[in-house]
Amino acid sequence: MKILGFESSAKSASVALLENGVLLAQSFQNSGLTHSRTLLPMAEDMLKNLDMDFGDVDLFAVAHGPGSFTGVRIGVSAVKGLAWALDKPVCGVSTLEAMAYNGIAAPEGVIICCAMDARRGQFYNALFEMEGGKPRRLCEDRAISPSELAEEIKNLKKSIFTVGDGAALCYNALDNFEIKTILAPEPMRFQSAWGVCMAAADRPQQTVHELLPVYLRLSQAERERQERVFGK
Amino acid sequence: MKILGFESSAKSASVALLENGVLLAQSFQNSGLTHSRTLLPMAEDMLKNLDMDFGDVDLFAVAHGPGSFTGVRIGVSAVKGLAWALDKPVCGVSTLEAMAYNGIAAPEGVIICCAMDARRGQFYNALFEMEGGKPRRLCEDRAISPSELAEEIKNLKKSIFTVGDGAALCYNALDNFEIKTILAPEPMRFQSAWGVCMAAADRPQQTVHELLPVYLRLSQAERERQERVFGK
Repeated sequence: MKILGFESSAKSASVALLENGVLLAQSFQNSGLTHSRTLLPMAEDMLKNLDMDFGDVDLFAVAHGPGSFTGVRIGVSAVKGLAWALDKPVCGVSTLEAMAYNGIAAPEGVIICCAMDARRGQFYNALFEMEGGKPRRLCEDRAISPSELAEEIKNLKKSIFTVGDGAALCYNALDNFEIKTILAPEPMRFQSAWGVCMAAADRPQQTVHELLPVYLRLSQAERERQERVFGK
Repeated sequence: MKILGFESSAKSASVALLENGVLLAQSFQNSGLTHSRTLLPMAEDMLKNLDMDFGDVDLFAVAHGPGSFTGVRIGVSAVKGLAWALDKPVCGVSTLEAMAYNGIAAPEGVIICCAMDARRGQFYNALFEMEGGKPRRLCEDRAISPSELAEEIKNLKKSIFTVGDGAALCYNALDNFEIKTILAPEPMRFQSAWGVCMAAADRPQQTVHELLPVYLRLSQAERERQERVFGK
């Protein structure tokens, strides 16, 4: 089965094609160009270079959030559009679970701390542990403050490997609480579409109508409206 | 400085753009399609998607071998052609040194064992150790038999992390000599153009005329001719 994965939850963007568990191709970009400009051409070029097109894909997978609201919307919309037009199934996966695959080389017992900068003094975060080559989830995806995260991690008394576009920020924040972690080296740090494909391979397929972005928090516009209407 | 790297030394192929040490983009393919068909379009598509073209590149880098003779020739020829046409410098780097960057997350003290299937009962191999985020070379690139490699590694008494397209073969070969190694997980196993760019950033630039493939051994045609002419 061929899974085409899309990752556009933060500044970087990537697409990958996984066939029966094997990575056939991946394109990654961390240029700062907008995903609405780069994501679909990257996928189209990648498939063309494999002598394939979108019609050869069996399942369209996407990191459905949490993450940048605009980035998540672009990825989810691209996948919905393609799958609807081609009448194919989709699969939305947690951005944080997909990036946990970056810790695939971590020995069992090491905690994979997935971190995205959620702004407003919070991280989007979840914790995982590798088990038989796959990340086993230790908590739900959440928006959490550095002090809450530090408190929780301190009690685990395990080695921590931080990944994600917020990994450096998380590394520094935990360091302020005197918690030493291992910062993933740059090429293993950022979220990648390979992880999206790997996570999707294990999940039930969805219809286009079931696929929705997962924001975890209200958008800035919604938050400001609520404050205007209901007070703080 | 923008470095465009090419890797086509084995079955997979990749191109990457590194700007001042930061990976801006990478495209990877492991489809089995010939590199003469995929390598240049991958690079052109990647640059186009970055709003760049070949003229924006400051240095063309390539894995100059050892490796598949045809693969190495395709990569070296592509870079020579581009650099000659655009009057830009080039840099050929050891395929094995470039792939050693895959072990970037390995703690100091762990040996990175780079392995390519050289056929005829040999590996192309070199050993490295990470030091300050860069691989430090422990021996020259060589073609070596599993028993010779096992003997050498046994005496090191250190943890071994195997990378490269021959990593699984090397893992099994060393296992036969009762040497347990850590096999790099698939997405960190295969050679990548990111490592080519990283290695090139540290090396002197070359002119197009100085860049040559490094085969380490005679080609099959040369070997058979020598056997015909001179006897075995």
